[in-house]
Amino acid sequence: MTKNSKVFVNLNLASLDDSGAKYGWIENAAVVVIDGLIDWLGPLGALPSPYSTLPQDDLGGRVVTPGLIDCHTHIVHGGDRAVEFEMRLNGTSYEEVARAGGGIVSTVKATRAATAEELLTTALARVDVLIAEGVTCIEIKSGYGLDIETELRMLRVARAIGERRPIRVRTTFLGAHATPAEYAGRDDDYIDDVCIPALRAAHAEGLVDAVDGFCEGIAFQPAQIARVFDVARALGLPVKLHAEQLSNIGGTKLAASYGALSADHIEYLDEAGVAAMAQAGTVAVILPGAFYTLRETQAPPIALLRKHGVPMALATDINPGSSPLNSLLLTLNMGCTLFRMTPEEALRGVTQNAARALGLADVGTLAVGMRADMAVWNIKHPAELSYRIGFNPLHSRIFGGSS
Amino acid sequence: MTKNSKVFVNLNLASLDDSGAKYGWIENAAVVVIDGLIDWLGPLGALPSPYSTLPQDDLGGRVVTPGLIDCHTHIVHGGDRAVEFEMRLNGTSYEEVARAGGGIVSTVKATRAATAEELLTTALARVDVLIAEGVTCIEIKSGYGLDIETELRMLRVARAIGERRPIRVRTTFLGAHATPAEYAGRDDDYIDDVCIPALRAAHAEGLVDAVDGFCEGIAFQPAQIARVFDVARALGLPVKLHAEQLSNIGGTKLAASYGALSADHIEYLDEAGVAAMAQAGTVAVILPGAFYTLRETQAPPIALLRKHGVPMALATDINPGSSPLNSLLLTLNMGCTLFRMTPEEALRGVTQNAARALGLADVGTLAVGMRADMAVWNIKHPAELSYRIGFNPLHSRIFGGSS
Ligand SMILES: [Zn+2]
Ligand SMILES: [Zn+2]
Repeated sequence: MTKNSKVFVNLNLASLDDSGAKYGWIENAAVVVIDGLIDWLGPLGALPSPYSTLPQDDLGGRVVTPGLIDCHTHIVHGGDRAVEFEMRLNGTSYEEVARAGGGIVSTVKATRAATAEELLTTALARVDVLIAEGVTCIEIKSGYGLDIETELRMLRVARAIGERRPIRVRTTFLGAHATPAEYAGRDDDYIDDVCIPALRAAHAEGLVDAVDGFCEGIAFQPAQIARVFDVARALGLPVKLHAEQLSNIGGTKLAASYGALSADHIEYLDEAGVAAMAQAGTVAVILPGAFYTLRETQAPPIALLRKHGVPMALATDINPGSSPLNSLLLTLNMGCTLFRMTPEEALRGVTQNAARALGLADVGTLAVGMRADMAVWNIKHPAELSYRIGFNPLHSRIFGGSS
Repeated sequence: MTKNSKVFVNLNLASLDDSGAKYGWIENAAVVVIDGLIDWLGPLGALPSPYSTLPQDDLGGRVVTPGLIDCHTHIVHGGDRAVEFEMRLNGTSYEEVARAGGGIVSTVKATRAATAEELLTTALARVDVLIAEGVTCIEIKSGYGLDIETELRMLRVARAIGERRPIRVRTTFLGAHATPAEYAGRDDDYIDDVCIPALRAAHAEGLVDAVDGFCEGIAFQPAQIARVFDVARALGLPVKLHAEQLSNIGGTKLAASYGALSADHIEYLDEAGVAAMAQAGTVAVILPGAFYTLRETQAPPIALLRKHGVPMALATDINPGSSPLNSLLLTLNMGCTLFRMTPEEALRGVTQNAARALGLADVGTLAVGMRADMAVWNIKHPAELSYRIGFNPLHSRIFGGSS
């Protein structure tokens, strides 16, 4: 045994594994961590004797879950849209807001104007709120630069977050998020001149873990997304897609045909699309924050996803426009309250299935060989994590075995 | 000048007074505090010279608002209802949950079984979350005892909260919350045998600042509430009422006829009821947490309240069943998002109008003679307090002039 060995004891474990027990529950468990990985876990009474001499960390009977994973965020961005939020509530129309420079245009402008240090500082303030909720892994997208230089800057800042804080960062290139003003009406030129070259440059710099797009009537069409995905495939990068949020134009089917890690939003997805996801092993990433903020009425097809066995993840989608939602715990409650997910589905959605949506095999559940990323909670029952609204019961957070 | 004198400088003030400026805004302001009260405020450039020798506290250009006020809570209670929340999401019907001992019955049982110390400890954990959001005043209701002894215990715990923490507590007697199992089918007997004697006993002990009831088809009828209100009037206590949440049975009109401080919920209120409130000076307390949790579809009549000039307050309604909402900041966002209140209405709803709903004349706005209860925020614009979801930008909190 090395010096970096420890046994966590006096805890109830929600391992979220597929053992068949609800929440993967183990009462009065022990977890052995060696060099940041789980070497053994099970009921304390069954702890093998070689481990009994290791230093023990008593968790006081608390509940332990995998560290939470926020698998869809736009947490790096310039500016905020509070004034625009207020304008709209005072009756200003979307058109007038747009004429006043509002909407995504304002975020692109603020992001382009921000230095890397400014982007990092403002993003870290938001990341720290998630860390305080037991989040140990976060996905971060580009997509507010829409020029090569700023897309790269966003991704470098995303990587820097993983260096500045004890959190694992997965980066996603989202050049196909919107067409910038200078390419208005020339979406295809934007894809050719900016998006694809930016993707190649970012990949060459090691900044891209996955490739995403926004496929929607008001954004890019499936054929345009396919051109970006072809480049991703050639580069050996997995894809995911913002799809079927406001209408059904076939984005999810396209994504599934590329073996996408995830299709995200999918409020308007039909059963054929759900079946395509099941076939491809694509995770459904459910984003209640945008549904709530935009006051949408069409919920994602939860019953169909269950029927076809499509894994469901849940994420904040934190962004300054449609989802200024900085709490993954609140996202659990929204998933249950707005979409009638069960608390177990919600919790699997920010652990086991969030890991799948990021293509990560070593986090998201607690089992032998997995990373010791864990959250320790002042609760008695895992359903409390979904039930409460605006209350954070985190006791402590363990990242790679260290508090 | 006494020793307890200070000038806060380098701040932008959202005083929430009725000066006519949006948010009662004063750019680059100064606030002079003497013995916990505001002695002067205005633009720093106009600071009268006698104050210029006082010690200064530089707030770094931050925004200062009145301390927030949560004017409707059930924050003292035993137990939680997380397991019931999960049962329902797993498809168990309300009837089955009730048969399994769920619903308000379970909270009454847990509250009766809890010692004062247990009730205090669990409530303080929730109160501390509000304090961390800049809340300086909170209303706390009884109503989960439904026997004389436990109603008194809840109110004593509420008073104790104000002694253990730097927060002002206003207590509300809510014996007419529900009929306990032992009085099933005998609502009138419960009012006579328990509710009114408990009110008299609590008042005699100095535990009651106001009297409330739950007037609804599934709870008490206006004639029953009137009997409780008659006792309140005889004791010189102001009244308020949970009214028109699920149907319109005339509770608000009744409350207005008693000059109620507030009518709370009021989703189903009609224009005649709104006019009665305006006439009586009754505040509308808007509770989006319960609307959200219960997935209601009928919003309160915001446009009619505006038309008739009825002041609107906003509160958490924190309770273990219909609103496990422990965040007043999130309540601001819900008021804007779900009910289309403006950010200024929302902020006035947790300051100026929340104070009115509690009958308090010395808090809720920042003006000469008012208590120096203030919140200092890391924001540029007050709309940010409503715009963000699950992010707390509090920098510091000043209670009676002290940090
Ligand atoms: Zn997104
Ligand atoms: Zn209430």
